[in-house]
Parts: sequence; C-alpha cells; structure tokens
Amino acid sequence: MEKYLQGIKPTNKEIYIEAKKHIDFLAKPLGSLGELEEISAKLCSIYNTLDINTDKRAIIVLSSDNGIVEENVASTPQEVTAIQTINILEGKTGVAVIAKQFNTDVLVCDVGIKYNINHPKLINKKIRNGTNNFLKEQAMTINEAKQAINIGIELANDAKKNGYKIIGTGEMGIGNTTTSSAVLAAILGLKDDDIQKAVGLGAGLTNEAYENKVRVIKDAIKKHKPNKDDVLDVLAKVGGFDICAMIGVFIGCAYNNIPIVVDGFIAIVSCLCAIRLNENIKDYVFLSHKSMEKGYLLALEEINLPVYLDLKMRLGEGSGCPLMFSIIDGAVAMFKNMATFEEAKIDTSYLQKLK
Amino acid sequence: MEKYLQGIKPTNKEIYIEAKKHIDFLAKPLGSLGELEEISAKLCSIYNTLDINTDKRAIIVLSSDNGIVEENVASTPQEVTAIQTINILEGKTGVAVIAKQFNTDVLVCDVGIKYNINHPKLINKKIRNGTNNFLKEQAMTINEAKQAINIGIELANDAKKNGYKIIGTGEMGIGNTTTSSAVLAAILGLKDDDIQKAVGLGAGLTNEAYENKVRVIKDAIKKHKPNKDDVLDVLAKVGGFDICAMIGVFIGCAYNNIPIVVDGFIAIVSCLCAIRLNENIKDYVFLSHKSMEKGYLLALEEINLPVYLDLKMRLGEGSGCPLMFSIIDGAVAMFKNMATFEEAKIDTSYLQKLK
Repeated sequence: MEKYLQGIKPTNKEIYIEAKKHIDFLAKPLGSLGELEEISAKLCSIYNTLDINTDKRAIIVLSSDNGIVEENVASTPQEVTAIQTINILEGKTGVAVIAKQFNTDVLVCDVGIKYNINHPKLINKKIRNGTNNFLKEQAMTINEAKQAINIGIELANDAKKNGYKIIGTGEMGIGNTTTSSAVLAAILGLKDDDIQKAVGLGAGLTNEAYENKVRVIKDAIKKHKPNKDDVLDVLAKVGGFDICAMIGVFIGCAYNNIPIVVDGFIAIVSCLCAIRLNENIKDYVFLSHKSMEKGYLLALEEINLPVYLDLKMRLGEGSGCPLMFSIIDGAVAMFKNMATFEEAKIDTSYLQKLK
Repeated sequence: MEKYLQGIKPTNKEIYIEAKKHIDFLAKPLGSLGELEEISAKLCSIYNTLDINTDKRAIIVLSSDNGIVEENVASTPQEVTAIQTINILEGKTGVAVIAKQFNTDVLVCDVGIKYNINHPKLINKKIRNGTNNFLKEQAMTINEAKQAINIGIELANDAKKNGYKIIGTGEMGIGNTTTSSAVLAAILGLKDDDIQKAVGLGAGLTNEAYENKVRVIKDAIKKHKPNKDDVLDVLAKVGGFDICAMIGVFIGCAYNNIPIVVDGFIAIVSCLCAIRLNENIKDYVFLSHKSMEKGYLLALEEINLPVYLDLKMRLGEGSGCPLMFSIIDGAVAMFKNMATFEEAKIDTSYLQKLK
C-alpha cells in the first residue's frame, strides 16, 4: 500500500495544455464543448499521451457484509448482499444491464460477504464473513483495513495487465450507506448535531428507522472517537471492507495511470478517503452522477470536481459508471474526430450562386 | 399545420402506469434508478406500448441565415452558416462526430441559407436566402413562418416513414441566438429592463458587442410590439426560419408519436413555442443538457422538465442530443433487460456454507 501511495505521480500538465491547444484548433467556438473539452484534456494528462482510448473498460464491484446491520440500520435483509452479488454475476441487476448496454465488463470481487458464493466468475478475496458490529467493537483491525486496500490495489493492477483503459467503482453490501455515512462524518470531523447531514435514507427507510440510523452512527463515533486526520483509524473503526477495497482501487488505478469513475455515495466517500491518503489521486478521478443519497453533496463539496449527470439515482452497484463512460466516449470522439479550422476549410465546389 | 396541431394526442397515461408497475417489480429499491425509470415510462406512454426501442435515431439540423446579423450581433461571419452546414454534411463538426459515436444519423435541411449549397446529402427546402433584418422590418411574413413550420412537419413525417424512433433537434445559423433571445423575450412578454435576462453571449461576444445585441433586441421589440400570446406573430416579427422549422419538427414528431430531444438554447426556445401552440407537445419532449447560453434557464423555468446533463456546452448544432440518446439507451436497457424480483430469485446452488 505505501509503495503504491508513494508511487502516484501528478498527471502530466504539459500534455494537458497541449490537448487544450488541439481542442482550441477544432472548428467550433472556443470552449463551446465545455466539459467534453475538459474531460478529453484530463484523459490526455492521465494517459500521458494525446492518443486517448477508453474502449476497454470495466466496473469493479466490491461486495461485502457489514456487522452494523444487526442494529437495524438497513431496510433490506443481509442475505441480499450475497443474492444480488450473484445476480450481478448473472447479468440481471441494474449495473449489469446498464454495463452491457455500454460495452462495459463487470468484475465482481468478494471482499467479505457473509455467505460463501460458488460462482465461476466471482473473484474471491474474502477477508472474513463481514465486519464486526461497530456499535459494539471496531469494524475491523487496522491490518484488515490495509489488507482490504491492498486487495483493491491488486484488482487495479490486474485491470492494467488485462488492458482496461478506464475503471468504474461499484459495490454491493447491505448496510454500506451506514458505514459510508459514518466514515464521512468521521473524516470531516462533523459535530454531533451535524452528523445527520452525512446520513441518508439508503435503499429506503421509514422516518423512525432513519432516526435510528443517525443515532447508531452518532453513538459509534462517540464510542470510538475516530481520528479525523487518520483515514486508516476511521476505516478500521467504522468502515467496511468494500469501502477499503474501493480506496485501494483508486490508489491502484492512479498508480497505473488509469482514469477512474466514481458512481454514487459509497464511491464518493471512498474517493474522498483516497484523496486524503494522496491528493494527486484527484487528478485521476471523474465523478459521474449526483446521487440522491443525502451525504453525497457533503462529500462533493470537499472533493470539488464537476458532476455531469443529474439522474436522481441512488441504486449503487456502480450503475452510474457506464452512463459516464458513454459521456466520456463523446469527449474522446470530439477530441479525435472533429476537424480543425484548417481541415474545415470547405471545398468551394459545394458553394454555388453566391447571392 | 392546423391539422397536425389538432391531431396531437395526449400520451397514454395507462401505459405509463403499467410501465411504472413493471419498473417497480425490477430487482432494485423502489425508485432507485430515478430519471432512468421516468424516461422509460415516458417512452412507453409516447409509443403507446411497453415494447420500446430507440435504436434508429437522427438529429434534424435546420440551417438558415438571419438578416439581423447586419447589426453586428454575431461574432462569426455570415458565410459560416453555409460553411458549417457543409462541414456537418461532411461529418466534420461537433454534432457530426458525436452523432457518429452514438449511431445517430444527421439529416441536414436548408430552410433559408444565404448561399446555395450543392451537396448530395443536403435536404433542400430553402424558403429564401435568409430572413430580413428585423431591426428594419419584420423578419418574415406570417405565411413564410407557416411555410417553415410546415417544412419541419414534413421532415418529421419523413422521419416516421423512414423508421426513425427518436429525433434530436439541431440548427446552424449565424445570428440565431439573437433571434432566439428576441423570440423568448417576446413570448415571455419581458419588460424592457428584463430583456437582457434572455440574451447571452452566443458563440462569444465582447462586453460591448453584447450590449449592442441587447439593444438591438430591445429596439426590435419596441418597434414591432409582438403579441406575446400569438406565437406566429412573434416568429414573423423577430424569429428565424430555423426556429420555425424546428417548431414544425416538434409538432410533426408529437403528431407521429416520436419522442424528441431538445439540444440547447435555440432548441428550448423552439420547444417553448411549440408547447404554446399545443401543450400536449410537452409530453413528447426530453430535454438533454443545461446549455451555458444565458436565456436557457429562463426557458427551462417555463417548460419545467428535468435536465439530465450538465456539461457546460454551448455549441448548438444538436451536439447535446446524441449524448442524451445514450442516456435514453441506458433507460431502455434497464426497462427491457433488468430482472424482476421474481426472476432474481437465485439459484441456491451458488450459495454454500452459510455461516
């Protein structure tokens, strides 16, 4: 983990400027393709070349269970983590069908599901059968947090080896909006009264259940006193294996010069943690859609990158990433295929009878 | 035109409800795919069937010149209308390359370019060589406005005949942010002091040139006193052939049960005019991206439909439509391919060693 964190370089600012120059020569009013221009130039700076290509892509879905569900913080039974993990593998869920539509592979990794899943396509890196109930004890040890991060780094290294050009972040884990909210509240050092700003309705809670979720997070933070300036301490105390592994994916992708797309709430919290570990990671990140989960905007404010899609989504699984890959396709097409002003000089044989 | 306006039916609300029921059976938290759910249900209500398909699609680009450019309201010389029209036909411009990326045809129609273009792919419906300078006289006659609208209807009818399932709105015409701002200010009945709220920088103006553009629009509205409740009066006095023809495309698509995607500022103003002519048209419309052209938000407030993309674009040409087609692809994939809760019941042979 340390080797990778230290090995992340800032992206290439000279190539970025060169890319912007090329874009400014394209036959359109200066800057008129807005974020498509920024996206393509950022891709050039990540890849360290003007020859950009994002055709081969995947979403890495981290699946794991969270002991905190014992406290009734989730509206869905815990076995749904395993069930939906299998359904993702079988191509049946939201992320699976949207990914297929946009020529995106889905790589599913078990980092700590409570059940053992015997499926040929599953990547098995199970740490153990879910975290502890963090209202009673730390969610995991510091070593387990590191282990999970290293799993994510390994997945990114494998993605590089397998020729993936861009990666999206997915997750499946009942209770993981609770862990994400707790991590967010902790690393932002939110005061007790402000903690509810980091807590949303997850897959759908009653008001009463929501109040309980907020209380559980407040009590856990009071109990463990996570150090807001120590990401690993926060993760071990109130995090989840999926969040930790996703942080590893951010680290590994940045290390390998692979752009990485953030899906929803769990992903943006992981992204924020990764940036806290090395701020250069921000240069490798693209947000996608503005999640409806309440804490998203709080994390967004910290990260301060553009959000491109407003689709009122809150499914998770990585379901927003393929849609963003498609926007990125548009940016790449603009960059590679639009004519420059020079090339756009017309064949005057088309123009006749000037009046 | 009247026959078509009267022939537009409200979309099928029973099918919409049936579609929403199907979506609620899909294996995901209720409502968690947000606008993707709304988009697919709206498509069902437009097509009057649950068997939706938007694979065959086109952007109709209306090209024409505007006499008002004599008043130095545009930063680009007038011949660029003709030049860029040819470049669109040749596949070189923003809309052309983005459309190609997303398997979208681009149909280009001359409704009043100042030059005669001799290009095999151009649809020639030229009314005349551009409108009049509306600071001096009406832009066109009422009959010409109707003629332009009928051209748009005809294009939509042809699209239906040729099997297109969804249409995007494009335009090319130097000076057409000025005509669009004038039309918007007129149909909203903006007071003199408020007119600048409808006026933006177009392809890029200096402060001085912007002040001039605002003054020209104010003076024209003072001179012609367009009747805010009479869309044709407004169009004839301060509109453009491209705007009128685009209104016809909205009418024709709605008449033919073809969903229609709005690009940027010129398109949303045309859309607003079309809705003023028949409010049912709103049911057939999808907005796409939040244009950076200042008046867009004013028109948006009136239309009050969701905007899905925030890409800081202001190119026009229809360049935002293919990106929106892609989001719609995601919605259709969700609707057709996601498993229901029933289908998502897992094969338990995958689940082993329950702990």
